[in-house]
Amino acid sequence: MRGAVLYGPKDLRFEERETPAITKPTDAIVRLAAACVCGSDLWPYRGIQPIAEPTPMGHEYCGIVEEVGSAVRTVKQGQFVIGSFFASDNTCPHCNFGYQSSCQRREFVGGAQAPLLRVPLADGTLVPTPDVPSKEMIPSLLATSDVLGTGWFAAAAANVKPGTTVAVVGDGAVGLLAVLSARQMGAARIIAMSRHEKRQKLALEFGATDIVTERGDEGVARIKDLTKGVGADAALECVGTQESMMQAIRSTRPGGNVSYVGVPHGVELKGEELFFSHVRLHGGPAPVRRFLPKLIDLVWTEKIQPGKVFDHSLPLHQVAEGYRAMDERRAIKAILQP
Amino acid sequence: MRGAVLYGPKDLRFEERETPAITKPTDAIVRLAAACVCGSDLWPYRGIQPIAEPTPMGHEYCGIVEEVGSAVRTVKQGQFVIGSFFASDNTCPHCNFGYQSSCQRREFVGGAQAPLLRVPLADGTLVPTPDVPSKEMIPSLLATSDVLGTGWFAAAAANVKPGTTVAVVGDGAVGLLAVLSARQMGAARIIAMSRHEKRQKLALEFGATDIVTERGDEGVARIKDLTKGVGADAALECVGTQESMMQAIRSTRPGGNVSYVGVPHGVELKGEELFFSHVRLHGGPAPVRRFLPKLIDLVWTEKIQPGKVFDHSLPLHQVAEGYRAMDERRAIKAILQP
Repeated sequence: MRGAVLYGPKDLRFEERETPAITKPTDAIVRLAAACVCGSDLWPYRGIQPIAEPTPMGHEYCGIVEEVGSAVRTVKQGQFVIGSFFASDNTCPHCNFGYQSSCQRREFVGGAQAPLLRVPLADGTLVPTPDVPSKEMIPSLLATSDVLGTGWFAAAAANVKPGTTVAVVGDGAVGLLAVLSARQMGAARIIAMSRHEKRQKLALEFGATDIVTERGDEGVARIKDLTKGVGADAALECVGTQESMMQAIRSTRPGGNVSYVGVPHGVELKGEELFFSHVRLHGGPAPVRRFLPKLIDLVWTEKIQPGKVFDHSLPLHQVAEGYRAMDERRAIKAILQP
Repeated sequence: MRGAVLYGPKDLRFEERETPAITKPTDAIVRLAAACVCGSDLWPYRGIQPIAEPTPMGHEYCGIVEEVGSAVRTVKQGQFVIGSFFASDNTCPHCNFGYQSSCQRREFVGGAQAPLLRVPLADGTLVPTPDVPSKEMIPSLLATSDVLGTGWFAAAAANVKPGTTVAVVGDGAVGLLAVLSARQMGAARIIAMSRHEKRQKLALEFGATDIVTERGDEGVARIKDLTKGVGADAALECVGTQESMMQAIRSTRPGGNVSYVGVPHGVELKGEELFFSHVRLHGGPAPVRRFLPKLIDLVWTEKIQPGKVFDHSLPLHQVAEGYRAMDERRAIKAILQP
């Protein structure tokens, strides 16, 4: 089969790869209904996160189970399933606490920008949909696999509740879906920080009540203005840089919550500033598995349409163009048809 | 009057100072029932936190109201009162959220190692006891002013609840009272990290169930051993150094809580390690005012005896010996009789 492989900065190739096969009895092979490019794929694509060797890319997936290993009990051939970028057994203590992305047996699932994918720990990892979905629903179901699951974690980790005032730092697909998530959790006010017209529009459609275009100290000052000098109850950091992290922390009131869901790149927090900020900080790789049943239900019952973040559709073999479009911010998120 | 003034490293003098007087109509003057030396006083005493000029010391206090300003409404002359190191109006938004130590009008209260103290924002800051206490109760009431209030915040900020497994990093008076606080909140298991026999004994008396003497990576490994490889639900960091902070973070399970209540000195947190640790982090200057009514009640009804942390009693004029004894770890905490 042919799939996307990253060789180095800006060098993404669509080339022949070994077809995935069952290697452990707990594996499943999934024929992917669609693939997509993640904001986090851009870190190695841009060379900011070096890679040691040519790396098969893609970690967001949904599709039909083609084959299961001999120890797989609940997942069946022919089911339409969705999983997360970290495979998890969903039975260890960390999984039981809802932190499946820190599962004691976790394995990263890579190589999903391809027609077929091997998923380890299939019973723990994969969640079936009620039935095989319509073609129209695929983008929104694919979104639950990571980008929505991560935005949802951003809102959950920041303790967003009915009535909360929320600031969202970052207008990528995760930030936009963090807006949608905060809306679903009943936030009274959702301030999206974006200076990009198309993204602002989608943020408003997803439930943002205010748009702030300023960044850094000026952005913080605007949040303070909008909250009568108090600060936001919650700031959802969906970028992963030092600037965005400090913007989130400084926008939050004492006792408020800051979540961060993108792998931090070069971020260092000074203990003393964090101490006097008085914020609560929580983040990490989103435990998407915890949220999948709920998110699938919201999509299946058409309460939400997270697939709207896909504004660029390409055949799979043009995956390199998907990377370019996202790198140049021409696209919010690219979906790839196999 | 004469009080303690720090001139520089190890240069603590007991000397003539101006007698405090009402300077704003919201002030009160309190005649102190006792004074004490705080672990945080040792940072400038040791020269780790430089001072710009000779500084009156002491910020833990309780005693009889001697005089109130013209705008003071609820606090009365003759009352026995306790307050915190940050004066707060107890009416601003931050106070209403329970973060009085980030009050929009907060003022640091300094100079309490003396017979008399000026307390700003008296109505918001001072909490009266039901009556004038017995002499025997003074040490425990004085403890509520900071050292217990801070230990209590460590447990509250780490979400200690019935059944929780807690690790306490630091065996100073705050750490020991964090043990007592975790016990009051119903923790099932409290692991005190201490290599000092006298402090271990007091930790056990306050409710610790296990003692770990190892530090750093070895200390973390012991906590993992004691929790079947999972990690603690909560780690209470009561020191303020890089080593103790990392020990707390690494001892905590994914999704668990790390609190930190001592001003961090030279602490820098790497974003990426924090991200993959999956812990929740919360701390800052303890909002003691939030807890004072509850803590006073626990002492008044003799449910707790936090005053046991005072193992060195001196007349006020020997305050310099109190600093020396704590600096050399001969004393856990020194109480000073006026």
